[in-house]
Amino acid sequence: MQIITETISLSTRGNTDMVDITPQAQEIVHQHGLKEGQITLFVSGSTAGLTTVEYEPGLLKDLPEAFEKIAPAGRRYHHDLTWGDGNGHAHVRASLLGPSLVVPFTDGKLLLGTWQQIVLIDFDTHSRKRTVVAQVMGE
Amino acid sequence: MQIITETISLSTRGNTDMVDITPQAQEIVHQHGLKEGQITLFVSGSTAGLTTVEYEPGLLKDLPEAFEKIAPAGRRYHHDLTWGDGNGHAHVRASLLGPSLVVPFTDGKLLLGTWQQIVLIDFDTHSRKRTVVAQVMGE
Amino acid sequence: MQIITETISLSTRGNTDMVDITPQAQEIVHQHGLKEGQITLFVSGSTAGLTTVEYEPGLLKDLPEAFEKIAPAGRRYHHDLTWGDGNGHAHVRASLLGPSLVVPFTDGKLLLGTWQQIVLIDFDTHSRKRTVVAQVMGE
Repeated sequence: MQIITETISLSTRGNTDMVDITPQAQEIVHQHGLKEGQITLFVSGSTAGLTTVEYEPGLLKDLPEAFEKIAPAGRRYHHDLTWGDGNGHAHVRASLLGPSLVVPFTDGKLLLGTWQQIVLIDFDTHSRKRTVVAQVMGE
Repeated sequence: MQIITETISLSTRGNTDMVDITPQAQEIVHQHGLKEGQITLFVSGSTAGLTTVEYEPGLLKDLPEAFEKIAPAGRRYHHDLTWGDGNGHAHVRASLLGPSLVVPFTDGKLLLGTWQQIVLIDFDTHSRKRTVVAQVMGE
Repeated sequence: MQIITETISLSTRGNTDMVDITPQAQEIVHQHGLKEGQITLFVSGSTAGLTTVEYEPGLLKDLPEAFEKIAPAGRRYHHDLTWGDGNGHAHVRASLLGPSLVVPFTDGKLLLGTWQQIVLIDFDTHSRKRTVVAQVMGE
């Protein structure tokens, strides 16, 4: 049984940009030659989250529209009164989505559905560098 | 320390059908005689999700109603324009809820609350066969 | 590779009260001298959930307001008709947020962002004692 901790670094455009990190997650499992176990993905930061989605152009619009309805960018948040950084909606969306995701694998292959990709969603109001912790436990 | 990967197979009626998979999850832990550790549940597929709930008839209506408000079935989604399969709302709901859940156990017993059950929620628009990966790590 | 299961006990005021449990989670990792691994947090009970947030006064108002919009306290839920306990909204909110969270650590330190804290959110309608399971796997 091994534990390996790596990071996935990426650039986003912010504004609920969705980035497919499936290839990087799969590659980390592959590189270390592990057959059975799980990869835990965790985004360090409070204005981004992780989930899975069918990564196709329609849903890349639908999901941001759903978040816009749940926590609109346009309205005033108490957070913005504290810091004046205008990203209160980004914090709310990130907390609702959550920062962690665990994906099991067998035979060295992530057990995702055929049309299911792992995405980081960056809710912040500008383009950013992001770090996702990718921790593998397995054998 | 062991890793065991099993699957839970089930049939759902779709349309935000909620299926209690607590007995199957508990049984997998029990079968392998593990005392302390955790079970990771992961649904392969992008139109279903996992969470916990008090599994009683009222909430089996309340939760679908809440999802109907968050991502209504009736309106047009960009996803539907891509594929014409009319389940855009199902994808959005599934991504918001998330595909993974981790439940610890001690003395071979899942550490759930008394009125807390593990549920798969199937948001797709028709009845389906579903596979939930159930991976146990422990000793 | 070790597994250690502890609990974090706390009091909340209910009504979407947000309690920062980062110090307790970090302390559990520290106490056992583990360097690399992950802590799984799981709330036993169906009217509370876990996530991360920048723990500052503005967001302590924004997040409850967002939940009030998603699942308002004021309206009637089928759950309330079943039990008459008036906390249907608390159950719905908790199921949407989810009961589990996994945070990796290296060098004995949780890999959270600088402004990212782990919070329990208690959606129930009154003050409560809560138990969060904190299970550490690592070496």
